[in-house]
Amino acid sequence: MNISVYLKSQSKKVEKALDGFLPKATDYPPRLHQAMRYAVMSGGKRIRPILALAACEAVGGDAKDVMPAACALELIHNYSLVHDDLPCMDDDNLRRGRPTCHKKFDEETAVLAGDALLTHAFKILASVNGTDINSQTVTRRLDALRMIAEAVGAQGMVGGQAVDIEFQEKELDLPTIEYINTHKSGALIAVSTRIGAYLGGGTSSQVRSIFEYGKTLGLLFQIVDDIIDQEGYATLIGVSEAKRQAQTLLLGAKEKLRPLGSKAAALDSIADFVLTRRY
Amino acid sequence: MNISVYLKSQSKKVEKALDGFLPKATDYPPRLHQAMRYAVMSGGKRIRPILALAACEAVGGDAKDVMPAACALELIHNYSLVHDDLPCMDDDNLRRGRPTCHKKFDEETAVLAGDALLTHAFKILASVNGTDINSQTVTRRLDALRMIAEAVGAQGMVGGQAVDIEFQEKELDLPTIEYINTHKSGALIAVSTRIGAYLGGGTSSQVRSIFEYGKTLGLLFQIVDDIIDQEGYATLIGVSEAKRQAQTLLLGAKEKLRPLGSKAAALDSIADFVLTRRY
Repeated sequence: MNISVYLKSQSKKVEKALDGFLPKATDYPPRLHQAMRYAVMSGGKRIRPILALAACEAVGGDAKDVMPAACALELIHNYSLVHDDLPCMDDDNLRRGRPTCHKKFDEETAVLAGDALLTHAFKILASVNGTDINSQTVTRRLDALRMIAEAVGAQGMVGGQAVDIEFQEKELDLPTIEYINTHKSGALIAVSTRIGAYLGGGTSSQVRSIFEYGKTLGLLFQIVDDIIDQEGYATLIGVSEAKRQAQTLLLGAKEKLRPLGSKAAALDSIADFVLTRRY
Repeated sequence: MNISVYLKSQSKKVEKALDGFLPKATDYPPRLHQAMRYAVMSGGKRIRPILALAACEAVGGDAKDVMPAACALELIHNYSLVHDDLPCMDDDNLRRGRPTCHKKFDEETAVLAGDALLTHAFKILASVNGTDINSQTVTRRLDALRMIAEAVGAQGMVGGQAVDIEFQEKELDLPTIEYINTHKSGALIAVSTRIGAYLGGGTSSQVRSIFEYGKTLGLLFQIVDDIIDQEGYATLIGVSEAKRQAQTLLLGAKEKLRPLGSKAAALDSIADFVLTRRY
């Protein structure tokens, strides 16, 4: 498969769905709604929803059962970026080449837009389509919502960000870096694959394999980032050791997909893409 | 009924349940978890969970079906206070006589603790007790979660806060004050009664009556606050007119409870209490 073509085509589908799930920019109060849309409709790679959709495909599921959750995951990712960029956090002025949300609007609007995006994500996750109500669907939705809340809360993504901030002026040791990597960015990537497989109707064993793939991919993602930026893990263990570990993680991620056969081709190619994207 | 005794006794039950639902202060990362507990276990009146429990009682429901959601509503209330108190928002140093969360900890921890409390609330709402799983329970949980997400998102509580902040340096007109009152504080109070009745197993008509009561109570709550603080609505329409309207709202709220009979005694007394608490 041509991974660039695949990613571009999936990303377009996600963008369209996101546009439909987000409230309109003219809804009252407009400034808040504009900020929500600004934060999300900003040309991200949409890797988390694409992973959820690819995981659904890997279990032979129907993309329409996963798309709402896939979009919710992207809203959660973007809320976390809006809050991470705040002056009291990473104090970033630019994100994807444009002013960050608090620079484009103001700090209070950015705090509230983040809050509203997180809330909206859970609203989407709790909204069952009128045509597909059955008790199994409803139970899976509620389970998926709980899995996501666990992955992005105080003992998941938010916990990772708290430790990252806390250690900005302290020396990082390996266990702390590993905690940050598995929580700050890893948890959301991993749960994206888990939710795609779960809502796609995968068996327990399929969901478990894909979740393990997702955890490994999350680590790979972070190590590659660190190699590119020459920081964190890569500086602590050295770039060539980091590259060696990245290669091992790639093989490990692919190994997890083996029981799924050819339906997991997209997940497999995404892992290659993550490793090779910039170095 | 003796409303003070009732509120005190219910508040104790809620405190105990909250203590159980919150993660431990020693969980990693500890500073974040300490901030979450500090924000919540701070002697609030617990009026929202108490309303949810009273609404459950009014439909003859079992308190144990409502307590998790009641606690989730209190976490959401407290997350909103933590974010509202931030320097970029209301910039408050004190809350309930103690340093605000960002003063006690720091700004970044307060942002993240708020995010984590909101996320934890949805996790609690999505956690179905192993003993009571049946498809009706699960469907009601998912419905309740969606109702709450709607009430506290960009077109509910967060929207109200956005407009309140936006108008801090502009002159307020009546429609804007009404929007702020019904959204910033009213929406969460109203949904607390709605969720209590709904998860308590109320009929559609009972849930509707109690939700209408809750909306009216939310307005009453805000008008009484404005009369006490001599601001907002009370200054725009004048204190004596505001008092007259408060009296009308009280009668309206009680009227909505009539179909529920004597089981709604607690809700009825809470309305009296809200009007008479400080003037």
